[in-house]
Order: sequence, then structure tokens, then C-alpha cells
Amino acid sequence: MPTRRDLANAIRALSMDAVQRAHSGHPGAPMGMADIAEVLWNDYLRHNPANPHWWDRDRFVLSNGHGSMLLYSLLHLSGYELGIDDLKAFRQLHSRTPGHPEYGYTAGVETTTGPLGQGLANAVGLALAERTLAAQFNRPGHELVDHWTYCFLGDGCLMEGVSHEACSLAGTWKLGKLIGFYDDNGISIDGKVEGWFTDDTPGRFEAYGWHVVREVDGHDAEAIKRAIDEARAVTDRPSLICCKTVIGFGAPNVCGTHGVHGAPLGDEEIQATREFLKWEHGPFEIPREIYSGWDARARGKQLEAAWHERLAAYRKAHPEMAAEFERRMKGELPERFAQHAEEALAEAVDESAKVATRKASEQALNRLGPYLPELLGGSADLSGSNNTKWEDCAVIGGAKADADGNYLHYGVREFGMSAIANGLALHGGFIPYTGTFLVFSDYARNAIRMAALMGIQQIFVHTHDSIGLGEDGPTHQPVEHLGSLRMIPGLDVWRPCDAIETQAAWQAALERRDGPSLLALSRQGLVAQQRTDEQVALIRRGGYVLAEPKQGEAELILMATGSEVAIMVEAAERLADRGRRVRVVSMPCLEVFQSQPADYREAVLPAGVPVIAMEAAHPMPWQALLGDRGRVIGIDTFGESAPAPALYEHFGLTVDAVVQATETL
Amino acid sequence: MPTRRDLANAIRALSMDAVQRAHSGHPGAPMGMADIAEVLWNDYLRHNPANPHWWDRDRFVLSNGHGSMLLYSLLHLSGYELGIDDLKAFRQLHSRTPGHPEYGYTAGVETTTGPLGQGLANAVGLALAERTLAAQFNRPGHELVDHWTYCFLGDGCLMEGVSHEACSLAGTWKLGKLIGFYDDNGISIDGKVEGWFTDDTPGRFEAYGWHVVREVDGHDAEAIKRAIDEARAVTDRPSLICCKTVIGFGAPNVCGTHGVHGAPLGDEEIQATREFLKWEHGPFEIPREIYSGWDARARGKQLEAAWHERLAAYRKAHPEMAAEFERRMKGELPERFAQHAEEALAEAVDESAKVATRKASEQALNRLGPYLPELLGGSADLSGSNNTKWEDCAVIGGAKADADGNYLHYGVREFGMSAIANGLALHGGFIPYTGTFLVFSDYARNAIRMAALMGIQQIFVHTHDSIGLGEDGPTHQPVEHLGSLRMIPGLDVWRPCDAIETQAAWQAALERRDGPSLLALSRQGLVAQQRTDEQVALIRRGGYVLAEPKQGEAELILMATGSEVAIMVEAAERLADRGRRVRVVSMPCLEVFQSQPADYREAVLPAGVPVIAMEAAHPMPWQALLGDRGRVIGIDTFGESAPAPALYEHFGLTVDAVVQATETL
Repeated sequence: MPTRRDLANAIRALSMDAVQRAHSGHPGAPMGMADIAEVLWNDYLRHNPANPHWWDRDRFVLSNGHGSMLLYSLLHLSGYELGIDDLKAFRQLHSRTPGHPEYGYTAGVETTTGPLGQGLANAVGLALAERTLAAQFNRPGHELVDHWTYCFLGDGCLMEGVSHEACSLAGTWKLGKLIGFYDDNGISIDGKVEGWFTDDTPGRFEAYGWHVVREVDGHDAEAIKRAIDEARAVTDRPSLICCKTVIGFGAPNVCGTHGVHGAPLGDEEIQATREFLKWEHGPFEIPREIYSGWDARARGKQLEAAWHERLAAYRKAHPEMAAEFERRMKGELPERFAQHAEEALAEAVDESAKVATRKASEQALNRLGPYLPELLGGSADLSGSNNTKWEDCAVIGGAKADADGNYLHYGVREFGMSAIANGLALHGGFIPYTGTFLVFSDYARNAIRMAALMGIQQIFVHTHDSIGLGEDGPTHQPVEHLGSLRMIPGLDVWRPCDAIETQAAWQAALERRDGPSLLALSRQGLVAQQRTDEQVALIRRGGYVLAEPKQGEAELILMATGSEVAIMVEAAERLADRGRRVRVVSMPCLEVFQSQPADYREAVLPAGVPVIAMEAAHPMPWQALLGDRGRVIGIDTFGESAPAPALYEHFGLTVDAVVQATETL
Repeated sequence: MPTRRDLANAIRALSMDAVQRAHSGHPGAPMGMADIAEVLWNDYLRHNPANPHWWDRDRFVLSNGHGSMLLYSLLHLSGYELGIDDLKAFRQLHSRTPGHPEYGYTAGVETTTGPLGQGLANAVGLALAERTLAAQFNRPGHELVDHWTYCFLGDGCLMEGVSHEACSLAGTWKLGKLIGFYDDNGISIDGKVEGWFTDDTPGRFEAYGWHVVREVDGHDAEAIKRAIDEARAVTDRPSLICCKTVIGFGAPNVCGTHGVHGAPLGDEEIQATREFLKWEHGPFEIPREIYSGWDARARGKQLEAAWHERLAAYRKAHPEMAAEFERRMKGELPERFAQHAEEALAEAVDESAKVATRKASEQALNRLGPYLPELLGGSADLSGSNNTKWEDCAVIGGAKADADGNYLHYGVREFGMSAIANGLALHGGFIPYTGTFLVFSDYARNAIRMAALMGIQQIFVHTHDSIGLGEDGPTHQPVEHLGSLRMIPGLDVWRPCDAIETQAAWQAALERRDGPSLLALSRQGLVAQQRTDEQVALIRRGGYVLAEPKQGEAELILMATGSEVAIMVEAAERLADRGRRVRVVSMPCLEVFQSQPADYREAVLPAGVPVIAMEAAHPMPWQALLGDRGRVIGIDTFGESAPAPALYEHFGLTVDAVVQATETL
């Protein structure tokens, strides 16, 4: 019978050997946290290796993602579809074991981690999703949704600002089924953290309203077990278990130093480690009794089967809710959603009026929200400015009574909000959307990137999208943001020009289940454009012809997005008066347009026809799109504080500027 | 004799009237913090309105920058060059009173604030600069550098993650002359913060090692005075004074609500406020005795004069150090810097060897650092990876003994680091540089933007600049970053191709005193390119011809930056073998190149000659530059985890791809 330490040593051996074989990687954290992981996974974690998608599994997040071999070892040992050959291919092209855990690459990886602090924020989102879903679906005698979220984290996660944002909210929300394990090893890449990390971390977390278990020996299985029991017993607050560990535990000459953090141990030290740990097996050799000690398949099968019985009983008692639960967890839109969306779009067309697109966004939510209980919105303290709080919003708070809701006041925490919402999306059962000012996409930027990288659905409602916001000035006026967001692979950036395009953009964002969308919305009112039904239907293609010359073929195209479309429409009229044959193209989503078939794109922007493009933003995306035939009117300096009309004049975003540009084409 | 409250009410009146006149702005914070500001400015702040650049002035930062009218009122009332007409032009184009305080627009504004939390981080940098400079220059009997840093901040600043990063470090560094004033009014934009901000803030700051003065009545001048005295008495830790205030104090019907945060009060409420405050003067009318009560000019003149006497005495005792102090505070490079830089570049040319540009960056620091005591570097826990810690680095810590140094271990805090370094730059006397991985520019992004917006010198040393970093995978591999950073107005992005260009890039970044530069550096070794002396001298023009066809005029240009230059050089050789006449252009800094005269640019990239460009990054910048004559080989998807050579092959960044591209040109 292997001891607990033997079981944990399997992680240590696999980790050091895989890193050594790859000639790169991070053995320190896996070796340091192996004992904690062993206790958690073998004694507590409810999961089924045969079905990593079991809806009611406990969620495990490795926020210190550089320790990926810890997670790969756990998945391999406990019986997931991750063979020893996968471990041998650690960090090789297209392997299931990339350098950091990548969502979608490896069965059992709940989220992509590596950018520090964000895994912890994802875990807060996962735990919040669990509690919200439980409040929405559980009924007396039916604990359909009932699982824990466990998160490993290191010093780095705790130094990052996003940990403050996310953990403060977790405290406010009283997420009692969230347990963090702090790998308090006193080491980060630069060395002993005492020179740059002197926080009283337990005190800090108590200030957030967390329950803290202090000073746990992270290499003593019994102590770890007691700590987990203590944490699980406190269900009205999240818990942080502070585990004192030795980084690289087992490597006799380098453990406890930063030398073991992010580099292979080397053959000699690996040999010494084997001796120290009395691990007498070759690289990637795991004795059968060790595998047996880890194998979670039988238990996992039972656990899931028992839950399916609960689901069956629930289905019997609450058939409609059960169907709704299944629909949401499968990530399917309501059956009649397409029809509702169609009607909502028609309504937007009927109502067409001059309105800020941020307001139009609220209207879109009011139209579609009632059909989408999976919507879980929020704003970083700009609810009234982002217009994210639609009429049926119920705020989720920290009390049992308000656990069932569909809106979150995230406070002034753009990064935390966005990363938490990624967690909501990862959990399943929700479509999260999050609001802030577009300029503060900067604060949230890496979480937006992570949503795109993972291919998960989040809708970023970013208002005040240009100098058009006026007086707040350059700190609040995006310039480079539209272009730089469009460069994030897999992110769809919508910048609608009126209420109708806003409605269509919301529909596209809701229907896009395999990636995030960002809605860049105006503060200022935008006139409604006239469209035929065919044109309305074309919005979802990302770009389309909004106006044609009264007669003849267009000899010039004016193209714009968002608030500048109306300027182009007016310019086209002015030019028509001068006998020019001008087409106007509205391009609310460049990424979607570029994904259209070539013939469609050619039909909208025929080769050889010159194009003047305008966007109150950096011109780079349009210069790149149009090449020599384009002239782009944009802004490549910072904004100014002044009323919006004065700024449009000052920066030359005017009908006159367009007319003038035609003269030099 | 006006009372203290009368003096404070002048701020309230000016703020509500200016916001009303502008039809936009934030009256709540200025009205709420007026009493605190009155005590601080009239009883403590050592400044000279006639010389806002006096080197030893106390620094005052309004981190809750939306309350800009508080600061403008203070500057106006105390005698700065900011007239009543300036206040009347609040939020109008090109006024001195933009919506948020903008550095460089208004005498006495120490930093641009508005993006929450960053002002606080700047203040940490200002306080650190003071302490470091004092340690470097003060001598027994000569307290040449001796001033305080005061920072006002609101709930929003405290919710932001950057406050965690900056304040944790301020605690570690024991910045005893930093005092924060927390405007604890219980309100943020969405309403009462109790629903989303339940931190025990005093407990949190004590966990950071701060001295906290709790529960101060922010409308009781005596209580405020006691609190400031208490805070100033504790000099071994930063202090946070928690002031209970009523937002919009004085507006009888809306004070204490979020309605007063960010909108004009309206004529009726303004009238009611006048009555409530017994403020019987019209809009923008300040009675003479109120002005007298505020006027800081005489005292300021004395204070500065006394300091100049101290400086004179210091100069007498330590003439060389005094000259050095003045040089550094003026922001001048050492007299012989140009010569040193020349020699360093020649040395780099002589030594030319295959080396990672991150390593070459360290070599550049080793060459130039000894001449630049103003260099104050650091890294977000990646010192050994960013190679930012050169051989003469001395680490600044929290003890008196190690206050004099030139290197900071910032821990895993990219945003806090970058914003703190902005504070170092704003203080004067330092050239800060900061290291992280390029992908984590995302975390720091808004601080990079703020450096560019303010036009201050900071050098961002961002290594691991592409898929070339290899195994760490897509979370660590920048793709969109180079392009999106190039879109930030005023930021110079350098991506050198070898050690020589790296040396030249460092020189350019050091010589650029009016804006930030970012060095994007490789993890992997890059071969040294051959250059004539003329070519070496051209590097600083941002782009230049690196290789010409052996004979004849070039019919094709291959252009690249950084690690892809070597691929282009090899491709040119291959194509030359096939009889093609190929020029190679190296373009280490697109922004600098684009600022060159048209004839130079034309000489490097003559019209009509097709260009194939390669960069291991999103192709947008090069597509935008080159238009129809360009073909760009780049990456517009996320990276993968694998050894770098496999990734270059996988993503088609190869000589073969270039040769193939020529066939379709």
C-alpha cells in the first residue's frame, strides 16, 4: 500500500521528468503543492475522469498555471484521457500538454491559466455561477446544483491587482463554496519574496470577509485534511487555506530556492531527488499500486450516476425547469430565440429614432432579455452610463435571499469583472456580459484576450467609444482601442451606427457561442439610418451597402462605422448634389465582414472604386484593409476635453473634410 | 475673518458653479473633500504658487481625478496661474481646466488622473522618488530633499486592482512620507457601495504595513488636523487617513447620494446649496477675504527662498553633488553622454555576436548605466528573464540602509510597476525603466498609455516578444501587442534585430526625454548583422537599408523587424542566387521612421518597388504602411506551445515562405 507521500511523489516525479524531457518548464510548484493536491483530489474532489463535462463536478483551477505539470499529473493519475505519452510530449507542438494549461486542449482543464491572478478570478466566477445556478434551479429536496470550486494559487497571483478585485467581490458575495489554497512558499522568480511581498495575506483576506485557515503545513496530509474540513465547514464565506510549502519539495539541493521555479532540475539533481524521495522508478514509470491509489474512475462513475439519479428525480418533479436547466447547460439558445430576435429587430426598425447606441443597447436587452434567463450582466460601476441594467434586472448580492438574480454590481473593477465573467462562461449555464467605458478595456485587456483565446462567450459592452464622449477628455477618450481590439484574434468588435445595427449586433453576439464579442457604443445620440429589409438583414454580415447613388454605378465609396456613418451619409448627399455617384458602406464589424465569401466582400467594396473611410479612432485598421485605394480620416493623437461637436470639428471628422478628401483622390 | 468652513465653501461654490456652467462634470467629490483639502493646503502643504516646478515642493495628487474642480479651485484660490476665467472655461476646448486634471495643461497639476487607482500609484512613485533622491543627495546637516506626498483617493481607487499593487509595495518600501486621504463617502456611481465594496479598508491597509488613522470626520477641521499630525508623526510607514465624508456636502437635497457624483446640481439645488452653506456670493464671485484666507503666495515664496538657501549651503559644502542634483532635476543627460553612447555603440559593433536582444539590452545597460545614476530600473518579478538587473544594480528596500539604490523588485505587479514608474518620472531626477514580458503589457496597458499621454520618459523593457519564446505557449506569446502598442499616440516601439540595434534603441530611448519608449526584445538568440558605419548611424532613424543587391537597383524589398530580420537576410541571399535584385530593410522603430523627412523614407522604401514584410506578430501595421505594394507575412491567430523553431515553421515565418511570396507578387 503506497503512503500518501508516495502518491504525491508520483506528481513530483512526473513533473520533474517531463520538464527535464522538454528542456523547459516549472517543476517547483508541482513538487511543492503535490501533497496538497493529493489530499484534495483523493479525499474531496468530486469529479468523473470519464466525463470531464459532467455538469455538477467540482471545479479545480490551477491559477498558478506555470505549474501545469501538477495538473497534467493529476489528470493522468486519476484516469483522465491523458496518457503517459501525452506527458512525454509536454510542451511540444499540438500535444495535449502545452506549457500552460489550455482550455480545450486537455480534458479536465477548466480554464486557461498562466497570466497570474486570472485563474483565481475565473474561480470566483465559477463559484458564483454555481451559487446562482443553484438559487435558480434547486428546489426543496432537490440539490441539483451542488459543487465546490477549488483554486490553487501562488504568491504571484496574490501580488497581481486582479486578485484584489476578484477576492474583494468574492467576500462581498459570500461565496461559501469557494476554497483557495495559497502556496505560501516564500519564493517567486526573483528570489525570496520578503523583499517585495510583505503583505499579511491572512489579514488582507479577512479584510475582504474571507474565512482564513492560517499556517497549514502543506506537506502534512493530516494538517491539510483538517484545514479542508475546516474550510468546508464555513459556508457563509469563501475560505483561504494558507499552506506553508517548500518549493521544489524533494529536490534536496535546490528546494526552497527560486532556482527550482522555472527551469529543469538537471540529471544530477533529478537523481538526487529520486534518492531523497525514495522514488525508485524510472522516468514516466508509475507502479501499478500508485495508479490504483490515484484512480478516480470508479468513484467518479458512481458520483455522476448518483447525480443523474438526482437529475431524474428533479425532472420528474420539475420537468420544465429540468428541460430549461439542460438547455442552459448545453449552451443552447431558447428554441424560439431566432424568432424573438427577428421580432426584436423589426421592432427596432419600427421605432427608429435618434438615440445613443448605449441606450439602444439597453433597448435590445429589454427586447431579448426576457427570453434569456441565462443572461448574467453587470458593469464596473457604470450601470447607468453603460446602460447595462435593463428593466428585468435583479441584483445578485451576498445574502441567500438575493442569490438568484441576473445582474452584478462589480464595482470599479474592470479586470476582475471581465475575468470573473470568463469564469461564469466557463461554468456553463450563463451568457455573461460586462460593461465599462471603452477606454478602460485597457484595464481589462488581458481578460478580453483570454476570452478570445479560450473561445468562450462573453459580451463586452463598452460604451463612450470615442472623442464623442466629449468633456471627460483624453483619459476617457479611446483612440487606439478599436484598432487594437480588432487585432485580438477571435474577438468580434461591433461598432453599430444606430439602434437597428445595435439590435443586430446584440443578436450576433448572443448567437456567437464560440467566442467573445465587444460592442463599442456611443455616449451621444445617433440618427437612425433608413434601410430596406434586405439591408437590415445584411447587417449581420459585418459590412454592407447602406446607400447607393441615385443613378449609375458608384464611382466613390464612403465607408464608416458607428457615429461616423451619419457623417458619411450627409457627405454622400452633399457630393451627390455636386454630381458625384457615391455609395455609403456601413461596416459595424470588420471581423465578421472579413469572414464573408470573397464575392460578397467584392460586391460591397468593388476593386478599383476608391474609398474614403472615417472612424473617430486610429486609422490603422482601415489603411490595412483598403491599401492604396483608400483614404482614411481618423485620429492618431490623443483627444481633448470639450463638448463633442467642438471635438469633431477640431479633429476634422466632418462632412467638409470628406468633400475635401474627394478632391485629392 | 472667514471661518475654515467659509474657506472650504469657496471650493464647493466654484465646483458646483463650474460644473453647472459646463453642463457636465463631477461636483460630488470636490464638495465632499473641501474641508480636508482646506486643512491640508492651508496648514500643511509646502508649495509655491509662483513656481509650480520648485523641486522640493510637496506633491499633491488627486487620484479621484473626476473631482478636478477641487484641484482647480485649490490652485486658483491659493494663487497659481489659473484665473477665474479659466474656471469658467471648465471642460472647454484648449482651456486650462479640462474635464480631468491633465499634466502639462495646468500649472500645479502633478499628474494626469482620471483612470482610477493610477494617481495613487503615481503618488507611491513620487514618494519613492523623494526618499531615493534624499538618500542619494542629502548629507548630514543638509536636508536638500525633504518633502511630503499627499494623495486624495476615493472608493473607486481602492476597488481598482492597481491600488493593491501600489499600496502593497508602498508598505514594503515603508514610504513614511506618503499620506493618503481616503474619501470614505460610501457612494460610487452605481449607488451605495455597500452592495459591491465591503472591504475593511483599514484592515486591508494594515495588512500592507501601513499606518491607518481610522474614522476621521472629514468635515471637522480639528479632527482632520489631528489626523494629519498623527500621520506625519509616523515616518516609518505610509499613512492612510480614512475620512468619513458626505459626497456633495452642502447640497441639501442630493448630498450623500450618487446623484451628486457626476452631474450638475441644477439651478434649483445650487440655490438651495448657497442657502444651506450661507454662501451669499454669485457664481464665480469670491470675496477678497476668502482669497486672503487662501493665498499661499507669500508663504510659498518664503518656503522656496529658504530652500534655495539650503541649496546654496549644500552647493558650498558639496559642489559636485549639487551640480549633479541640478542636472538630474533639470532632466539633462550627463554632459558627455553623447560620447559615451557613441563609444558604447562602437563597442556593440565590435563585440557583435549571436545573442538574445534581451541579453543585448543588459549589455547596453552595463555600458551606459555607469554614466547614468538617474537610471532607476526594475522588473515585475522577471529580473533574470528581462535582463533588467545590470551589474551595478543596488536594490532599494524598505530599510534606511537600502534607500539609496537604482533597482526595484516590483514583484508580480505589471500595472502597479508601470504606474509607479510614471510617478518616478513625474517627480524628476530619475529615468525609470520597467521590465516584464511583452504579452503582459496588457496588464500595464493603461499606464503605458498614461506615460504617452503625459509625454514623460519611461522605458518599457518588454522581453519575450513573440512566438519565439517557445514552450510557454499562447498565454505568453504576444501576437496583437506590437501593433496595438504602435497605435498608442506618442509611444515609440523599438524592436531591434540584434545587439547593435539594441544598443542604438537604448540610446534613443534614453535621449527621448519627452515621451516613453518600449523595447520589444527577444528571448531567443539573434545573429549579428553586418553594417557599415553609415548603416550603424542610420539605426536611430527607425528604419534603414541593411543590405543592397550586389549589383543594380533593387527590384524587391524585404523588410522586417527584430527576430525576423535574419530570416529576410537569408531570404535575400537565396533570392540573389536566383538572380533577383533584393534590398533588405530593417525597421526597428516604425514611429521614428515615420517621423523622418519624406525624402529619407522614399529613399528607404522607394515608391513602386514591391515589399515583402515579415514580423512574428499581427500584420496590420505593415499592411497599413505598405498598401497595395506590400505582402505581409505575420501571424493573426494565437500562438502555440512548442520549441521556437517548430513554431516558426508552423506559422510559416520562413525563408521558404518569403521565396514563395515573391512568386505571387
